[in-house]
Amino acid sequence: MKYCFGIDIGGTTVKMGLFQEDGKLLEKWEIKTKTENEGEAILPDITQSLNIKMEEREIDREDILGIGVGIPAPVTEDGVVENTANLGWGYKEVKRELQELTGGINVEVCNDANAAALGEMWLGGGKGSRNMIMVTLGTGVGGGIIVNGQCVVGSHGAGGEIGHICVNYQETEPCGCGNKGCLEQYTSATGIVRLAKRRLEQDEAPSRLRRSRQISAKTVFDAVKADDILAIEVATEFGKILGSALANLAAACDPEVIVIGGGVSRAGEVLLGYIEKPFQQRAFFANKKTRFCLAELGNDAGICGAAKLVLDVEK
Amino acid sequence: MKYCFGIDIGGTTVKMGLFQEDGKLLEKWEIKTKTENEGEAILPDITQSLNIKMEEREIDREDILGIGVGIPAPVTEDGVVENTANLGWGYKEVKRELQELTGGINVEVCNDANAAALGEMWLGGGKGSRNMIMVTLGTGVGGGIIVNGQCVVGSHGAGGEIGHICVNYQETEPCGCGNKGCLEQYTSATGIVRLAKRRLEQDEAPSRLRRSRQISAKTVFDAVKADDILAIEVATEFGKILGSALANLAAACDPEVIVIGGGVSRAGEVLLGYIEKPFQQRAFFANKKTRFCLAELGNDAGICGAAKLVLDVEK
Repeated sequence: MKYCFGIDIGGTTVKMGLFQEDGKLLEKWEIKTKTENEGEAILPDITQSLNIKMEEREIDREDILGIGVGIPAPVTEDGVVENTANLGWGYKEVKRELQELTGGINVEVCNDANAAALGEMWLGGGKGSRNMIMVTLGTGVGGGIIVNGQCVVGSHGAGGEIGHICVNYQETEPCGCGNKGCLEQYTSATGIVRLAKRRLEQDEAPSRLRRSRQISAKTVFDAVKADDILAIEVATEFGKILGSALANLAAACDPEVIVIGGGVSRAGEVLLGYIEKPFQQRAFFANKKTRFCLAELGNDAGICGAAKLVLDVEK
Repeated sequence: MKYCFGIDIGGTTVKMGLFQEDGKLLEKWEIKTKTENEGEAILPDITQSLNIKMEEREIDREDILGIGVGIPAPVTEDGVVENTANLGWGYKEVKRELQELTGGINVEVCNDANAAALGEMWLGGGKGSRNMIMVTLGTGVGGGIIVNGQCVVGSHGAGGEIGHICVNYQETEPCGCGNKGCLEQYTSATGIVRLAKRRLEQDEAPSRLRRSRQISAKTVFDAVKADDILAIEVATEFGKILGSALANLAAACDPEVIVIGGGVSRAGEVLLGYIEKPFQQRAFFANKKTRFCLAELGNDAGICGAAKLVLDVEK
């Protein structure tokens, strides 16, 4: 039996998984992400943790097919990052450095949202599909596009940045990226709160949201489930914006399945209806059969996709 | 030396090319497309023409690496079309049938817009690039998206249908596809004429376009070159719509280069400025370095891309 490691580096913890080559996750664990001193300890810490694991399990170095790594930043096809928002790294040749540290084990690196998409295609909601769009609705809106079974990395490592598609050219408030009207401003967890607050300020319509001490995407969708009319209006607006944007993306990529993940997706199946209906209304006829589903792997999507990245190279 | 054929089936003629494996186009010719009786003669006519060419040139069947075919319809990965608008074919297993007719030579089939994109990537405006978007501005708006050097075929053979991205949710007139507000309605040759007519009706502003017996995309851009203020307004609106849509696509696909082709692109370099400026204003920061260029292969793009399709499989 051969093995591989899938690693998902986040700003707080590094998630790590040991996989069999058939996809079975044997064990997962976490270590702390030490971002101080430009994150100089991150790769050595990972190496040490991998070495300990191989010793514990008495796995020979030769039986490790490779190490896949997902990183919260654009990553080029050569496994280089130019900059990171929350790891401390500036320019870093991640692939080369980690290969050297681990004594020559093959390392493959990609963006963490792309890794999550690969993971969901391999073992989660998009299982069996080779053409997929994954949208991650969290603090921001991330995405991963899979074409012919491969991630769309793009020429600057910025493929799948779905959150920064412009959906409203009349918007006056800026997005974190500097543009105005990005999908992220309406359909991320914070975007949904923004839509809800705007709606609440519009008039005096009653809503249980007016009694919430702090409105979150969760309180909005909880209110939707309780048939709160104003919350349903907010969910409808959210779904129309996201569904329309996905219909446009589908015209370009023609996916078999669209997977909705991230914290907002914990609202459950109710979410899908609000997105699918406007998608159906807007979609090009050839794309109307596109299937929608929720992500299934939760926090494991990243380590699964990172492992898949390595196994694909081995083939 | 090995060879391959690139074939571009259109509603009026079938364009054919004989290529060396290094990409050199040795000879090109055309035969008539006989669409009568559900297009039953098309594939036999092609086979006969290929046989004659091989005899003429004394090329052994074993030295033919394959036959690539571009078709004006969605084509699945298995080389099947479900329907065609102007060839007479309904459901047709093009790959299998042509392989049988030619005595077992490998056949690869794709959509004609995707073939044109592959051709431009191989030998034309996108030469050297592995991530590219091609937009074909003709009677309609077609497109081909190349990711990691491969065409985005999509799960229903409808990848790259850029013309049917919705760019105006307020539009009241329908597009040929049945939706409203498609990119094609504003940026195709006919779309540009529509923009021009709408502008002319708005007020009495002077313009040389008022003296044209028939307005076309060409008369509009000729007027732009003659500094006609109203025509420049029309070109600006055209470019804003197309440039903004391409900025959104770039956020998803992160291309290195965007190639503009089709009849409208004969307006020349002047066209690119009108598209690039709004693209730059709208693009996600990681995509601002995306290069724009005009298509270079004209009517040969299809046969070149079809040939490339076969050579890629051989690798």
